[in-house]
Amino acid sequence: MQKAIELSFQGQREGTGGPFGAVVVRDGVIVGQGQNLVTSTNDPTAHAEIVAIRDACRTLGTFQLAGCELYTSCEPCPMCLGAIYWARPDRVYFANTRHDAANIGFDDAFIYDEIPLPIQERKIEMIHLPMPEAQAAFQEWQRGGDKSLH
Amino acid sequence: MQKAIELSFQGQREGTGGPFGAVVVRDGVIVGQGQNLVTSTNDPTAHAEIVAIRDACRTLGTFQLAGCELYTSCEPCPMCLGAIYWARPDRVYFANTRHDAANIGFDDAFIYDEIPLPIQERKIEMIHLPMPEAQAAFQEWQRGGDKSLH
Repeated sequence: MQKAIELSFQGQREGTGGPFGAVVVRDGVIVGQGQNLVTSTNDPTAHAEIVAIRDACRTLGTFQLAGCELYTSCEPCPMCLGAIYWARPDRVYFANTRHDAANIGFDDAFIYDEIPLPIQERKIEMIHLPMPEAQAAFQEWQRGGDKSLH
Repeated sequence: MQKAIELSFQGQREGTGGPFGAVVVRDGVIVGQGQNLVTSTNDPTAHAEIVAIRDACRTLGTFQLAGCELYTSCEPCPMCLGAIYWARPDRVYFANTRHDAANIGFDDAFIYDEIPLPIQERKIEMIHLPMPEAQAAFQEWQRGGDKSLH
Protein backbone atom coordinates (compact mmCIF):
# COMPACT_ATOMS: atom_id res chain seq x y z
CA MET A 1 0.00 0.00 0.00
CA GLN A 2 2.94 2.31 0.65
CA LYS A 3 3.88 2.02 -3.04
CA ALA A 4 0.30 2.75 -4.18
CA ILE A 5 0.26 5.87 -2.02
CA GLU A 6 3.70 6.89 -3.29
CA LEU A 7 2.28 6.68 -6.85
CA SER A 8 -0.68 8.83 -5.81
CA PHE A 9 1.77 11.58 -4.78
CA GLN A 10 3.91 11.04 -7.87
CA GLY A 11 0.97 11.39 -10.27
CA GLN A 12 -0.15 14.75 -8.98
CA ARG A 13 3.39 16.09 -8.54
CA GLU A 14 4.33 15.13 -12.11
CA GLY A 15 0.99 16.50 -13.34
CA THR A 16 -0.04 13.23 -14.99
CA GLY A 17 -3.49 13.24 -13.39
CA GLY A 18 -5.36 13.05 -10.09
CA PRO A 19 -3.93 11.88 -6.74
CA PHE A 20 -4.45 8.17 -7.21
CA GLY A 21 -2.07 5.19 -7.31
CA ALA A 22 -2.41 1.41 -7.45
CA VAL A 23 -0.26 -1.71 -7.57
CA VAL A 24 -0.94 -5.37 -8.35
CA VAL A 25 0.96 -7.87 -6.21
CA ARG A 26 1.51 -11.59 -6.72
CA ASP A 27 3.37 -13.70 -4.18
CA GLY A 28 4.58 -10.57 -2.43
CA VAL A 29 6.05 -9.07 -5.63
CA ILE A 30 4.70 -6.03 -7.48
CA VAL A 31 3.75 -7.19 -10.99
CA GLY A 32 1.93 -4.05 -12.13
CA GLN A 33 1.61 -0.44 -11.10
CA GLY A 34 -0.26 2.66 -12.15
CA GLN A 35 -0.92 6.27 -11.39
CA ASN A 36 -3.77 8.36 -12.75
CA LEU A 37 -2.90 9.41 -16.33
CA VAL A 38 -6.25 10.86 -17.44
CA THR A 39 -5.25 14.44 -18.22
CA SER A 40 -1.70 13.78 -19.42
CA THR A 41 -2.71 11.06 -21.91
CA ASN A 42 -6.22 12.33 -22.77
CA ASP A 43 -7.59 8.97 -21.70
CA PRO A 44 -10.64 9.09 -19.43
CA THR A 45 -10.15 5.37 -18.68
CA ALA A 46 -6.56 5.80 -17.41
CA HIS A 47 -7.42 5.58 -13.72
CA ALA A 48 -4.63 4.20 -11.52
CA GLU A 49 -6.34 0.81 -11.08
CA ILE A 50 -6.95 0.35 -14.81
CA VAL A 51 -3.36 1.33 -15.60
CA ALA A 52 -2.07 -1.11 -12.93
CA ILE A 53 -4.33 -3.96 -14.11
CA ARG A 54 -3.24 -3.49 -17.73
CA ASP A 55 0.39 -3.33 -16.63
CA ALA A 56 0.09 -6.53 -14.56
CA CYS A 57 -1.67 -8.38 -17.38
CA ARG A 58 1.09 -7.32 -19.77
CA THR A 59 3.75 -8.53 -17.32
CA LEU A 60 2.02 -11.84 -16.66
CA GLY A 61 0.79 -12.46 -20.23
CA THR A 62 -2.80 -13.06 -19.15
CA PHE A 63 -6.13 -11.25 -19.04
CA GLN A 64 -7.04 -12.69 -15.64
CA LEU A 65 -5.33 -11.86 -12.34
CA ALA A 66 -6.15 -14.93 -10.23
CA GLY A 67 -3.65 -15.24 -7.39
CA CYS A 68 -3.06 -11.47 -7.36
CA GLU A 69 -4.07 -8.69 -5.00
CA LEU A 70 -4.75 -5.07 -5.93
CA TYR A 71 -3.71 -2.26 -3.57
CA THR A 72 -5.19 1.12 -4.40
CA SER A 73 -4.79 4.44 -2.61
CA CYS A 74 -8.55 5.08 -2.96
CA GLU A 75 -11.71 2.97 -3.21
CA PRO A 76 -12.20 2.07 -6.90
CA CYS A 77 -14.79 4.01 -8.91
CA PRO A 78 -17.49 1.91 -10.65
CA MET A 79 -15.47 1.75 -13.88
CA CYS A 80 -12.45 0.37 -12.04
CA LEU A 81 -14.66 -1.92 -9.99
CA GLY A 82 -16.02 -3.34 -13.23
CA ALA A 83 -12.45 -3.82 -14.50
CA ILE A 84 -11.62 -5.61 -11.23
CA TYR A 85 -14.52 -8.02 -11.76
CA TRP A 86 -13.31 -8.78 -15.29
CA ALA A 87 -9.69 -9.22 -14.17
CA ARG A 88 -10.65 -11.12 -10.98
CA PRO A 89 -7.78 -10.56 -8.57
CA ASP A 90 -8.23 -12.47 -5.30
CA ARG A 91 -8.80 -9.34 -3.24
CA VAL A 92 -8.62 -5.57 -3.18
CA TYR A 93 -7.20 -3.28 -0.48
CA PHE A 94 -8.01 0.42 -0.54
CA ALA A 95 -7.05 3.36 1.71
CA ASN A 96 -9.18 6.46 1.07
CA THR A 97 -12.92 6.01 0.48
CA ARG A 98 -15.32 7.21 -2.22
CA HIS A 99 -16.48 9.83 0.32
CA ASP A 100 -12.94 11.12 0.78
CA ALA A 101 -12.75 11.34 -3.05
CA ALA A 102 -16.04 13.28 -3.19
CA ASN A 103 -14.65 15.71 -0.60
CA ILE A 104 -11.81 16.70 -2.95
CA GLY A 105 -14.12 16.96 -5.98
CA PHE A 106 -14.12 13.48 -7.58
CA ASP A 107 -17.72 12.46 -7.43
CA ASP A 108 -17.54 8.71 -8.01
CA ALA A 109 -20.62 8.47 -5.80
CA PHE A 110 -22.73 9.99 -8.61
CA ILE A 111 -21.70 7.16 -10.96
CA TYR A 112 -22.35 4.58 -8.23
CA ASP A 113 -25.88 5.96 -8.05
CA GLU A 114 -26.41 5.91 -11.82
CA ILE A 115 -25.30 2.35 -12.64
CA PRO A 116 -28.16 0.46 -10.95
CA LEU A 117 -30.80 2.79 -12.44
CA PRO A 118 -33.13 1.63 -15.20
CA ILE A 119 -31.74 2.88 -18.52
CA GLN A 120 -34.48 5.45 -19.05
CA GLU A 121 -33.75 7.15 -15.70
CA ARG A 122 -30.05 7.75 -16.28
CA LYS A 123 -28.54 11.23 -16.65
CA ILE A 124 -26.78 10.25 -19.91
CA GLU A 125 -29.42 9.33 -22.48
CA MET A 126 -29.27 5.65 -23.49
CA ILE A 127 -31.30 4.39 -26.40
CA HIS A 128 -32.03 0.78 -27.27
CA LEU A 129 -31.91 0.16 -31.02
CA PRO A 130 -32.49 -3.58 -31.47
CA MET A 131 -31.05 -4.81 -34.78
CA PRO A 132 -31.15 -8.27 -36.37
CA GLU A 133 -27.54 -7.89 -37.62
CA ALA A 134 -26.32 -7.42 -34.03
CA GLN A 135 -28.18 -10.55 -32.99
CA ALA A 136 -26.55 -12.37 -35.91
CA ALA A 137 -23.09 -11.47 -34.56
CA PHE A 138 -23.98 -13.09 -31.23
CA GLN A 139 -25.36 -16.17 -33.00
CA GLU A 140 -22.16 -16.52 -35.00
CA TRP A 141 -20.17 -16.36 -31.75
CA GLN A 142 -22.36 -18.98 -30.15
CA ARG A 143 -21.87 -21.31 -33.10
CA GLY A 144 -18.10 -21.15 -33.19
CA GLY A 145 -16.34 -18.26 -31.53
CA ASP A 146 -13.33 -18.48 -29.24
CA LYS A 147 -14.94 -19.30 -25.89
CA SER A 148 -11.82 -18.68 -23.78
CA LEU A 149 -13.28 -15.33 -22.78
CA HIS A 150 -16.02 -16.91 -20.69
CA MET B 1 -24.66 1.41 -35.74
CA GLN B 2 -23.95 -0.58 -38.89
CA LYS B 3 -20.22 0.12 -38.41
CA ALA B 4 -20.35 -0.94 -34.73
CA ILE B 5 -22.00 -4.21 -35.73
CA GLU B 6 -19.48 -4.71 -38.54
CA LEU B 7 -16.71 -4.38 -35.93
CA SER B 8 -18.46 -6.95 -33.73
CA PHE B 9 -18.23 -9.46 -36.59
CA GLN B 10 -14.67 -8.42 -37.43
CA GLY B 11 -13.43 -8.92 -33.87
CA GLN B 12 -14.62 -12.48 -33.56
CA ARG B 13 -13.63 -13.44 -37.11
CA GLU B 14 -10.10 -12.09 -36.61
CA GLY B 15 -9.98 -13.74 -33.18
CA THR B 16 -9.20 -10.47 -31.36
CA GLY B 17 -11.90 -11.05 -28.73
CA GLY B 18 -15.64 -11.35 -28.20
CA PRO B 19 -18.39 -10.27 -30.63
CA PHE B 20 -18.57 -6.61 -29.67
CA GLY B 21 -17.99 -3.39 -31.60
CA ALA B 22 -18.42 0.33 -30.93
CA VAL B 23 -17.93 3.69 -32.62
CA VAL B 24 -17.89 7.29 -31.42
CA VAL B 25 -19.51 9.81 -33.75
CA ARG B 26 -19.29 13.61 -33.78
CA ASP B 27 -21.26 15.72 -36.24
CA GLY B 28 -22.07 12.61 -38.25
CA VAL B 29 -18.42 11.56 -38.59
CA ILE B 30 -16.80 8.53 -36.91
CA VAL B 31 -14.02 9.87 -34.67
CA GLY B 32 -13.22 6.64 -32.81
CA GLN B 33 -13.84 2.94 -33.19
CA GLY B 34 -13.16 -0.26 -31.33
CA GLN B 35 -13.67 -3.98 -31.29
CA ASN B 36 -13.16 -6.27 -28.31
CA LEU B 37 -9.41 -6.91 -27.91
CA VAL B 38 -9.39 -8.67 -24.52
CA THR B 39 -7.90 -12.02 -25.46
CA SER B 40 -5.62 -10.85 -28.26
CA THR B 41 -3.97 -8.09 -26.21
CA ASN B 42 -4.26 -9.68 -22.75
CA ASP B 43 -6.13 -6.61 -21.58
CA PRO B 44 -9.31 -7.26 -19.59
CA THR B 45 -10.26 -3.59 -19.99
CA ALA B 46 -10.13 -3.70 -23.83
CA HIS B 47 -13.88 -3.87 -24.36
CA ALA B 48 -15.13 -2.36 -27.62
CA GLU B 49 -16.53 0.75 -25.92
CA ILE B 50 -13.32 1.44 -23.96
CA VAL B 51 -11.21 0.96 -27.11
CA ALA B 52 -13.54 3.31 -29.05
CA ILE B 53 -13.57 5.97 -26.30
CA ARG B 54 -9.77 5.92 -26.04
CA ASP B 55 -9.50 6.11 -29.82
CA ALA B 56 -11.91 9.06 -30.04
CA CYS B 57 -10.12 10.91 -27.23
CA ARG B 58 -6.81 10.39 -29.02
CA THR B 59 -8.30 11.70 -32.27
CA LEU B 60 -9.91 14.73 -30.64
CA GLY B 61 -7.11 15.48 -28.16
CA THR B 62 -9.43 15.55 -25.17
CA PHE B 63 -10.51 13.35 -22.27
CA GLN B 64 -14.15 14.41 -22.53
CA LEU B 65 -16.51 13.52 -25.37
CA ALA B 66 -19.10 16.30 -25.12
CA GLY B 67 -20.91 16.66 -28.45
CA CYS B 68 -20.29 13.00 -29.31
CA GLU B 69 -22.49 9.92 -29.46
CA LEU B 70 -21.45 6.35 -28.78
CA TYR B 71 -22.92 3.51 -30.83
CA THR B 72 -22.28 0.05 -29.42
CA SER B 73 -23.41 -3.34 -30.71
CA CYS B 74 -24.33 -4.38 -27.15
CA GLU B 75 -25.46 -2.66 -23.95
CA PRO B 76 -22.32 -1.52 -22.09
CA CYS B 77 -21.13 -3.57 -19.11
CA PRO B 78 -20.71 -1.67 -15.82
CA MET B 79 -17.01 -1.00 -16.49
CA CYS B 80 -17.84 0.56 -19.87
CA LEU B 81 -20.79 2.40 -18.37
CA GLY B 82 -18.41 3.89 -15.80
CA ALA B 83 -16.05 4.89 -18.63
CA ILE B 84 -19.00 6.50 -20.43
CA TYR B 85 -19.82 8.59 -17.36
CA TRP B 86 -16.21 9.77 -17.13
CA ALA B 87 -16.04 10.54 -20.88
CA ARG B 88 -19.55 12.05 -20.99
CA PRO B 89 -20.72 11.63 -24.57
CA ASP B 90 -24.14 13.21 -25.17
CA ARG B 91 -25.89 9.88 -25.64
CA VAL B 92 -25.43 6.16 -26.14
CA TYR B 93 -27.16 3.85 -28.62
CA PHE B 94 -26.95 0.09 -28.15
CA ALA B 95 -28.36 -2.88 -30.08
CA ASN B 96 -28.13 -6.15 -28.13
CA THR B 97 -28.95 -6.10 -24.41
CA ARG B 98 -27.15 -7.38 -21.30
CA HIS B 99 -29.61 -10.29 -21.36
CA ASP B 100 -28.62 -11.19 -24.92
CA ALA B 101 -24.98 -11.08 -23.73
CA ALA B 102 -25.77 -13.38 -20.79
CA ASN B 103 -27.39 -15.83 -23.22
CA ILE B 104 -24.10 -16.25 -25.07
CA GLY B 105 -22.07 -16.55 -21.86
CA PHE B 106 -20.99 -12.99 -20.99
CA ASP B 107 -22.52 -12.40 -17.63
CA ASP B 108 -22.34 -8.65 -17.27
CA ALA B 109 -25.53 -8.94 -15.19
CA PHE B 110 -23.49 -10.46 -12.34
CA ILE B 111 -21.29 -7.34 -12.22
CA TYR B 112 -24.36 -5.08 -12.39
CA ASP B 113 -25.60 -6.91 -9.28
CA GLU B 114 -22.28 -6.61 -7.42
CA ILE B 115 -21.57 -2.89 -7.87
CA PRO B 116 -24.35 -1.50 -5.68
CA LEU B 117 -23.63 -4.00 -2.86
CA PRO B 118 -22.02 -2.91 0.40
CA ILE B 119 -18.30 -3.70 0.20
CA GLN B 120 -18.46 -6.53 2.72
CA GLU B 121 -21.11 -8.40 0.69
CA ARG B 122 -19.21 -8.50 -2.59
CA LYS B 123 -17.90 -11.71 -4.14
CA ILE B 124 -14.37 -10.30 -4.51
CA GLU B 125 -13.04 -9.49 -1.04
CA MET B 126 -12.50 -5.74 -0.52
CA ILE B 127 -10.65 -4.50 2.53
CA HIS B 128 -10.54 -0.93 3.79
CA LEU B 129 -7.07 0.01 5.11
CA PRO B 130 -7.31 3.67 6.11
CA MET B 131 -3.86 5.33 6.08
CA PRO B 132 -2.85 8.88 7.01
CA GLU B 133 -0.36 9.02 4.10
CA ALA B 134 -3.21 8.40 1.62
CA GLN B 135 -5.21 11.20 3.22
CA ALA B 136 -2.13 13.43 2.93
CA ALA B 137 -2.06 12.83 -0.85
CA PHE B 138 -5.66 14.05 -1.09
CA GLN B 139 -4.88 17.09 1.08
CA GLU B 140 -1.94 17.97 -1.14
CA TRP B 141 -4.24 17.78 -4.18
CA GLN B 142 -6.78 20.00 -2.51
CA ARG B 143 -4.14 22.59 -1.70
CA GLY B 144 -2.74 22.89 -5.20
CA GLY B 145 -3.31 20.07 -7.67
CA ASP B 146 -4.39 20.46 -11.26
CA LYS B 147 -8.15 20.81 -10.94
CA SER B 148 -8.92 20.40 -14.66
CA LEU B 149 -9.97 16.83 -13.95
CA HIS B 150 -13.10 17.89 -12.11
